[in-house]
Amino acid sequence: MPTFVQILDFIGTFAFAISGIRLASAKRFDWFGAYVVGFVTAIGGGTIRDLLLDVTPGWMTDPIYLICTGLALLWVICFGKHLIHLHNTFFIFDSIGLALFTVVGVGKSIALGYPYWVAIIMGSITGAAGGVIRDVFINEIPLIFRKEIYAMACVVGGIVYWVCDFLAMQPYLCQISAGLAVFITRILAVKYRICLPILSGEGNAEG
Amino acid sequence: MPTFVQILDFIGTFAFAISGIRLASAKRFDWFGAYVVGFVTAIGGGTIRDLLLDVTPGWMTDPIYLICTGLALLWVICFGKHLIHLHNTFFIFDSIGLALFTVVGVGKSIALGYPYWVAIIMGSITGAAGGVIRDVFINEIPLIFRKEIYAMACVVGGIVYWVCDFLAMQPYLCQISAGLAVFITRILAVKYRICLPILSGEGNAEG
Amino acid sequence: MPTFVQILDFIGTFAFAISGIRLASAKRFDWFGAYVVGFVTAIGGGTIRDLLLDVTPGWMTDPIYLICTGLALLWVICFGKHLIHLHNTFFIFDSIGLALFTVVGVGKSIALGYPYWVAIIMGSITGAAGGVIRDVFINEIPLIFRKEIYAMACVVGGIVYWVCDFLAMQPYLCQISAGLAVFITRILAVKYRICLPILSGEGNAEG
Repeated sequence: MPTFVQILDFIGTFAFAISGIRLASAKRFDWFGAYVVGFVTAIGGGTIRDLLLDVTPGWMTDPIYLICTGLALLWVICFGKHLIHLHNTFFIFDSIGLALFTVVGVGKSIALGYPYWVAIIMGSITGAAGGVIRDVFINEIPLIFRKEIYAMACVVGGIVYWVCDFLAMQPYLCQISAGLAVFITRILAVKYRICLPILSGEGNAEG
Repeated sequence: MPTFVQILDFIGTFAFAISGIRLASAKRFDWFGAYVVGFVTAIGGGTIRDLLLDVTPGWMTDPIYLICTGLALLWVICFGKHLIHLHNTFFIFDSIGLALFTVVGVGKSIALGYPYWVAIIMGSITGAAGGVIRDVFINEIPLIFRKEIYAMACVVGGIVYWVCDFLAMQPYLCQISAGLAVFITRILAVKYRICLPILSGEGNAEG
Repeated sequence: MPTFVQILDFIGTFAFAISGIRLASAKRFDWFGAYVVGFVTAIGGGTIRDLLLDVTPGWMTDPIYLICTGLALLWVICFGKHLIHLHNTFFIFDSIGLALFTVVGVGKSIALGYPYWVAIIMGSITGAAGGVIRDVFINEIPLIFRKEIYAMACVVGGIVYWVCDFLAMQPYLCQISAGLAVFITRILAVKYRICLPILSGEGNAEG
């Protein structure tokens, strides 16, 4: 029997993979390319985190992520044209994935003995870096650097984790609070189109 | 005396470096930029594999890859205009490199105790990821996500390796069979323009 | 009290972060995106080096790099429009950063027992790879592959380090000489617009 967290992990992976596969399909990738982009969107953040923490990336120990991405590809192949109607559903799934990946990233870093400021960054990398690699692969400027609050929601969740731990709350309560913080921040940001300020260009910037 | 595998490795590295340097020259990179792109095309896949497997990247233990890339750059500088006539030769060399890199990647992962599904991915990364980094550096959508079968040939080779091992064949026979499988798949795919299906776009996909 | 090297490190990090943030602002990134690009420009090279050398990335052990990037962002937000007048100042800071990062990269690799040809590459990666990631993130062809001598200055510095060590000079003298070599090479290259030759395109190159 899969646990509740495993079910959430599967849902999050599926939603992240769908987001990668859909963007790949808009660029007319072939099935293999779409699969790779979907897979990297789903596991890229966790892989960078695990390389930085010097542990074996999670997807190398369990083929569930490969299978899950395969199901996501099958889904898009079969129901691609009807996906638009499910936009809101996938948005919810994606936000669940973001919340869960952030909590997993923060928790794993803390368990390895890193301080909280590292753990918050690792949580944000887990949640958001997969989407950055996805956008590099499809040759677009990463969305999270320009659109409404996304990675900032991970940072908020990481800080909530920290505060809860500081208040000596139980680990599972820290995790639930942090996950809810990510989820709610993300939902509110999209609903009310909350954006961070744009950095005004200099007209003729040169490095 | 170099062994037969070392000669093949040199040929493969040379062909991969040439492919990077040629694409860099089409974008008017300077010599240094072209060298870096050639080098990363040749050793990028193996480096990502070794980071994931947590071992020291092969090119850090032997300067042959640096030298080989230098020879490739010299070749393009001297004979660049005549390279087009050698297109088929380089295609054969590139396919040899792809086959060899895949076999090395699968073999190394198995030797480190990873299961076959990880080894097949590692073989494909070894063969194909260098080209992905190359395309990111020259700011193009990675070719392997859109063109005829390339990384899929690595997957086919990895599966052949697995089947041969399952049939209790000698290691060297597994490797030769897998290498031939990659090489033949790649040659046939290009000769008969075999492509994977394109994932049909949604018109207005958004992540 | 911070040491002299720490002060130089802070100046270099600040200059690198500014260069990332300015280019991000030209692409209309939001504050978060600009911060991330600035941070990655500053610590990206060292992080790749440390992943290759299999040690913990420096920025994960000291929050100074996060703080320094935050100050750089604040600076651009407050004084962005006046930055252009400081172009030469930042060019000097950037060159100091390049020199220092190169020396740190070479020194760290030597201390870990790698041969000099690896150390020179690691020094160049430390100095120049952050800018490559920056340019990938803002979806431009990396500047260092096309413009005047930049990463080559790191290579020159690494070779000077090697020669000084070969001549049995004191470690601190090796480091000062190497750093000056990077700095002077970079300054001269920009002042006299010294470029490497462009690799002439083939018109219709295909990988």
